[in-house]
Amino acid sequence: MTILVPAKSVLRGISTLVTVDKQSSTPLYRQIYDSYRARILSRELPAGQLVPSSRELARELRVSRLPVLNAYAQLVAEGYFESRVGSGTFVAHLIPKSPTAPLSAVVVAGASRQGRSISALAAALPTYEAPYWADNLGPFQVGQPAIDEFPLQLWSRLVSRCSRHLQSSALRYGSPMGLAELRDAIANYLRTSRGLRCEAGQIMIVSGSQQALDISTRVLLNSGARVWVEEPGYWLVHHVLTGAGCRAIPVPVDTDGINVEAGIKLCRAARAAFVAPSHQFPLGVTMSASRRLQLLNWAHSVGAWIVEDDYDSEYRYDSMPIASLQGLDDNARVIYIGTFSKVLFPSLRIGYVVIPTDLVERFAALRQSMDMCPSAENQRVVAEFIRGGHFARHIRRMRIIYADRRRVLIEELERAFGDLCTIVGTEAGMHTTIVMRGSLKDQDIAVKAMQRKLLVSPLSLAYLGSASHQGFVLGFGNTQAAQIPEGVRLLKECLAG
Amino acid sequence: MTILVPAKSVLRGISTLVTVDKQSSTPLYRQIYDSYRARILSRELPAGQLVPSSRELARELRVSRLPVLNAYAQLVAEGYFESRVGSGTFVAHLIPKSPTAPLSAVVVAGASRQGRSISALAAALPTYEAPYWADNLGPFQVGQPAIDEFPLQLWSRLVSRCSRHLQSSALRYGSPMGLAELRDAIANYLRTSRGLRCEAGQIMIVSGSQQALDISTRVLLNSGARVWVEEPGYWLVHHVLTGAGCRAIPVPVDTDGINVEAGIKLCRAARAAFVAPSHQFPLGVTMSASRRLQLLNWAHSVGAWIVEDDYDSEYRYDSMPIASLQGLDDNARVIYIGTFSKVLFPSLRIGYVVIPTDLVERFAALRQSMDMCPSAENQRVVAEFIRGGHFARHIRRMRIIYADRRRVLIEELERAFGDLCTIVGTEAGMHTTIVMRGSLKDQDIAVKAMQRKLLVSPLSLAYLGSASHQGFVLGFGNTQAAQIPEGVRLLKECLAG
Repeated sequence: MTILVPAKSVLRGISTLVTVDKQSSTPLYRQIYDSYRARILSRELPAGQLVPSSRELARELRVSRLPVLNAYAQLVAEGYFESRVGSGTFVAHLIPKSPTAPLSAVVVAGASRQGRSISALAAALPTYEAPYWADNLGPFQVGQPAIDEFPLQLWSRLVSRCSRHLQSSALRYGSPMGLAELRDAIANYLRTSRGLRCEAGQIMIVSGSQQALDISTRVLLNSGARVWVEEPGYWLVHHVLTGAGCRAIPVPVDTDGINVEAGIKLCRAARAAFVAPSHQFPLGVTMSASRRLQLLNWAHSVGAWIVEDDYDSEYRYDSMPIASLQGLDDNARVIYIGTFSKVLFPSLRIGYVVIPTDLVERFAALRQSMDMCPSAENQRVVAEFIRGGHFARHIRRMRIIYADRRRVLIEELERAFGDLCTIVGTEAGMHTTIVMRGSLKDQDIAVKAMQRKLLVSPLSLAYLGSASHQGFVLGFGNTQAAQIPEGVRLLKECLAG
Repeated sequence: MTILVPAKSVLRGISTLVTVDKQSSTPLYRQIYDSYRARILSRELPAGQLVPSSRELARELRVSRLPVLNAYAQLVAEGYFESRVGSGTFVAHLIPKSPTAPLSAVVVAGASRQGRSISALAAALPTYEAPYWADNLGPFQVGQPAIDEFPLQLWSRLVSRCSRHLQSSALRYGSPMGLAELRDAIANYLRTSRGLRCEAGQIMIVSGSQQALDISTRVLLNSGARVWVEEPGYWLVHHVLTGAGCRAIPVPVDTDGINVEAGIKLCRAARAAFVAPSHQFPLGVTMSASRRLQLLNWAHSVGAWIVEDDYDSEYRYDSMPIASLQGLDDNARVIYIGTFSKVLFPSLRIGYVVIPTDLVERFAALRQSMDMCPSAENQRVVAEFIRGGHFARHIRRMRIIYADRRRVLIEELERAFGDLCTIVGTEAGMHTTIVMRGSLKDQDIAVKAMQRKLLVSPLSLAYLGSASHQGFVLGFGNTQAAQIPEGVRLLKECLAG
């Protein structure tokens, strides 16, 4: 039922209608408020118009006075009404709204941003598409650990325990550097297992290695700075540099890692090099000791920074994990990045940066401005996971699982393709890459493969310049050994088709 | 015990010492590896030097052959040794390390960054200092909710339940926009309680309002862009703009909120305005309807963006919460920011941005490059908290608690200072501000107050230009009513002293 209240002289000049519906689930005060507000914005109620007293309106509407008082208080608080002591309440003087296109014309999905300028850097980023693996398709997705092998029950127990022992003091803002106990645990792990030279004070907890790449870029590099990147390399490094206005200089990678001499010829004065020395992405090579020294010497001589992305070095199959570049560096030129996304799970969003001591304060200042500090709860659980020995145990267990998946994959690839491809980067991590001989378009084949629920990444997409090789990056982290033979068979069909 | 293995002819020319300590907790392979690596890097072992076979060295060291084989494999993998089929294993040709200052000279804490260039934007950020409230001092800290009143047990139960029901599929990378169920819950809340016009597709989950400010700035504004900020205003907005190279134009705030006419006179062509229309920080005023329309009209006419920071509008004491600016905007010029830091707790790090539909894809692209996606676990818990009705209940309960704290604070301030100060911004939120009459230096007094464990924020610090007022921002969110009289008494003493 809608009660219409006609304009009457008793309502002291209200020239329009205030409507309420007593059956509606919307509270009465809200209906009165909405009604007035709409009519004031549409100019049906002119500025300076006296409004009826709350008592009068309540009587007209046959409602109690309380909702009317509430609505009036709100309209005064928001500036639609003005109260003048002794004279009553009036419609406020509002300037007219600009004439506008109908809302639908500007906010419909996919509408162009015509005439709506955004930053040049944001405009330069490649189109975002929901990643192809979001729908949980089949084998060979890259960058995914074996989530079905993750000790969910153990994790859940730790989460519950940490939350039961949650102190109210832990609800406050934390340090932009992260939780002290987790930083301690990570520093200890990195010193003993990864050969880093670092103290807990240099560790910043970030939400995954991506935030580490972003904050490092923002602290270290000016817009316009030229930066060595590995060619082929990791596409999200390219995005970070684009987003910061830096110019990526693709430097070829050979069997010893990034070719430092080539880099010096291309651009000696680059301000930084972004590298993955333990396990290059996507070629999987390990940077040789000689190249490491060359790279460090170059950085020292020109005053450049090295960003070392050590994203999955925990898993190495034919030798122990490779010592970090950071540990070789005598000049504190290396910013070291690691993550729990591959060792634990990606949606955890916890990674870390090891920062040269003299830069720690600047990283903290920028981090505070970026997002204050990391979330407390997950950090505590990870710290517990490491302290309880679960972390070391999990890595050992997963190394065996991944080694098996890798063995089956290599066998199947050799059987299926023989001399038609070269298999590279099998020493470590959770992916291997096959470089195909002959002429083919890996991107076309990847599209075909996706239709058969096969998630192979085209190698050519990893090149910033023109691709010198065609092939596929094959993740085996989240691909069960039993799935692999069929997956390779399907890939062969796609290549033949 | 350290067994020294002297250089002998049987070791085919090894001219130095490989040492192992069988009592050490360091594994033997690691000792052998470290020993070789150090001597190769220090040039004690020259390039091209033939190394003893693993069998020979094992015999010399009186250890089994396995650790020697492991160490050799590692040294080959990392490029310190080179294997030549048929000829044996040699020390690799490494280029010399550059001469360096001793490590300690560059990485000692607090060392200057002399000769170590960082980005101009990072250099421009103010010095980071651990916030004064990190040590959990006494009353009046700003921006802190009543953490002792947070329903910890209920929260812990929800956390446990969510983690028990964790599916392994939830371990994967998520969307950069956030978890669908949380975005739905927030869109629904904002439409019904905050008067927004929005769909779940426009909601991006971020790690607190700070990340929302950062991503909005990076998507919308070029370096050099001029931007209106409220004067006085929120200091971390200033940091975000500094970090992006934007030029903040301080626009005075009066009792109706930001003075749009003054803004137009100062800089009509600004590219954006950062405002808190519901509850301005620190003055606490509500932007009037008239000013809202003026601001929207200005933004429409010059093609500027409005970033609406609605950080604590849930708590309003004399009327219902104020409708958002976003809901008045017919031209999709408003980016709306909200957070759970004040309503739930700060260390949760969950907030949200409501993005004009045509900009959603650009926000997603930049977010992916910034940190991929938000953490999954906390999002699920918050979604459950809202869906279970706990959120609405919590807000109702806290509003009563805060209203009481606010009442006591105002009474005590009036009693203590009378006409010596004006109390402003008491309608909403978790802080009030007192503007002091007469001449005093609020920053000096705040330092005195801190020595007495009183956390008052000097009003003058909130000015970007020269401060036109001196006073104090007093948080009452995390200050119990019983603490307030003593706190005000102490403040009075500091002012008198």
